[in-house]
Amino acid sequence: MSLLVLGTVAFDSIETPFGSRERILGGAATYCALSASYLCNDIRMVSVVGRDFPEAHLQMLRARGINTDGIQQRKDLDSFFWAGRYHRDLNTRDTLDTQLNVLAEFEPVVPEDSRNCDYVMLGNLMPSLQRKVLEQMKSRPKLVVMDTMNFWMDHFWDDLLTTLTMVDVLTVNDEEARQLSGEYSLVKAAKKILTMGPKVLIIKKGEHGAMLFDGQRIFILPALPLEDVFDPTGAGDSFAGGWIGYLAHSGQLEHSEFKRAVVYGSALASFTVEQFGTERLANIAPGELGARLAQFSELTQFDLPFEG
Amino acid sequence: MSLLVLGTVAFDSIETPFGSRERILGGAATYCALSASYLCNDIRMVSVVGRDFPEAHLQMLRARGINTDGIQQRKDLDSFFWAGRYHRDLNTRDTLDTQLNVLAEFEPVVPEDSRNCDYVMLGNLMPSLQRKVLEQMKSRPKLVVMDTMNFWMDHFWDDLLTTLTMVDVLTVNDEEARQLSGEYSLVKAAKKILTMGPKVLIIKKGEHGAMLFDGQRIFILPALPLEDVFDPTGAGDSFAGGWIGYLAHSGQLEHSEFKRAVVYGSALASFTVEQFGTERLANIAPGELGARLAQFSELTQFDLPFEG
Repeated sequence: MSLLVLGTVAFDSIETPFGSRERILGGAATYCALSASYLCNDIRMVSVVGRDFPEAHLQMLRARGINTDGIQQRKDLDSFFWAGRYHRDLNTRDTLDTQLNVLAEFEPVVPEDSRNCDYVMLGNLMPSLQRKVLEQMKSRPKLVVMDTMNFWMDHFWDDLLTTLTMVDVLTVNDEEARQLSGEYSLVKAAKKILTMGPKVLIIKKGEHGAMLFDGQRIFILPALPLEDVFDPTGAGDSFAGGWIGYLAHSGQLEHSEFKRAVVYGSALASFTVEQFGTERLANIAPGELGARLAQFSELTQFDLPFEG
Repeated sequence: MSLLVLGTVAFDSIETPFGSRERILGGAATYCALSASYLCNDIRMVSVVGRDFPEAHLQMLRARGINTDGIQQRKDLDSFFWAGRYHRDLNTRDTLDTQLNVLAEFEPVVPEDSRNCDYVMLGNLMPSLQRKVLEQMKSRPKLVVMDTMNFWMDHFWDDLLTTLTMVDVLTVNDEEARQLSGEYSLVKAAKKILTMGPKVLIIKKGEHGAMLFDGQRIFILPALPLEDVFDPTGAGDSFAGGWIGYLAHSGQLEHSEFKRAVVYGSALASFTVEQFGTERLANIAPGELGARLAQFSELTQFDLPFEG
């Protein structure tokens, strides 16, 4: 099945306790599409880059089978740029610089031949832009997943609520789930968010894993324990890309598939954090993903002597 | 198999966002033995109470099949008393009052007919007292589990290290694992702690579940998501009691059993936090534990279309 991915394609400058990188390839759509590309062979990106964006990055994406026709390139502006520094615990970070550049005037255009995609991933972006993509689709996609963040809750609340009513699945982190719902308990937060539009909610908890709320059913998968998380940038987007990428591959929309998709998303995200930026995610060798899935099984699966 | 449980039997006064209770039954050994009593029918407690301790509490323990012969009763001193107030997130608490009373002069004595117990749970207590129990055993138990806390790391470091060399399993929370090892990464912390004596380490992460480190192998089980955690007091001791109680029941010491034991421990702890003190843990109806285990399966188990 075809998967459309909306989101940023950007330059990131990143400092972690393990080192730093200047102006490396980043952006929500980049991580999301790269991650999905291990599972789904028909991915179309919708984004914007600037005059400073090297063709080599686009070639790398295309080499992974990703269609980049929907990535506009502005000749008069630079690419979106973000710089951040992670703290020792890698759960918190300071933004050192944000230059919107091309993003300030971005109007997403879904190429004509991508307007019937079955699966749509609305990466973190202004909610009105996420909506614009949905409005360009010729028919209702089978599944629409939306990622968002606290910034849109702080400044674009009504807009966010409107877009929320149009999506099937929302992914947020635990603090964002609390802010969106006004509830501290994540179970209560999920109940409330599931009345706001989405039928499925995924709460990303970083090193503590991910929670899937599918109506009354809950599934939890821990993150893979690592000696060191090298660079957490893009982990959430890699998770989302793996999640929807698995579903686009399987074509089934049922609870057992949603659970499997969490395992695939978590496995792919576990690669992302092992190196800076997309260095690891873009270079997963054949067999490595399967081995990582088996690690997740060993980590979480048990059998009981009896049940009931 | 027989299980010996060392630890406090106490009065607790507890305030949570949901209400408060004055001088209710508490103590590490109480929670631990009550929890294990659903799985193991030969439990002997070693502890001390004071002149103010009602016979009804001891009768309740005996009614659950727990042998209380090793609980000394001092006629000249009051029972250990702790008062605390939990914050809104229920992960942090302030100690309002601690009265050691009988604990200040406690010398644990293992009754003659309990000195050959197969399984020993050393509940959180001064490390030298934990050691005194091991020294009274006639032969090396099949399994010795030790719980401890940051207080002993702060004030009885050498003593703690000595006792650590004598146990098979250590249970601590994430902050304590970091303090004990000097490592922030829990994977690195576990590696270091497993060189200090224990062959197995369990890191309790409260709402984020529990991690079992068994040599090179890791198993993680999330906690049961609850709308409200009513009172977290005793959750860690209930977990430990369920963990060793399951193993004492099964008689097997292998990795798959250690994993199952984590599920039993987590299931029993999930009852504890539903009401104040031991109110819920002491009153689990037939069938309720089995239903809770099935909930943990639904929450965590998945199947993959392929592996490897």
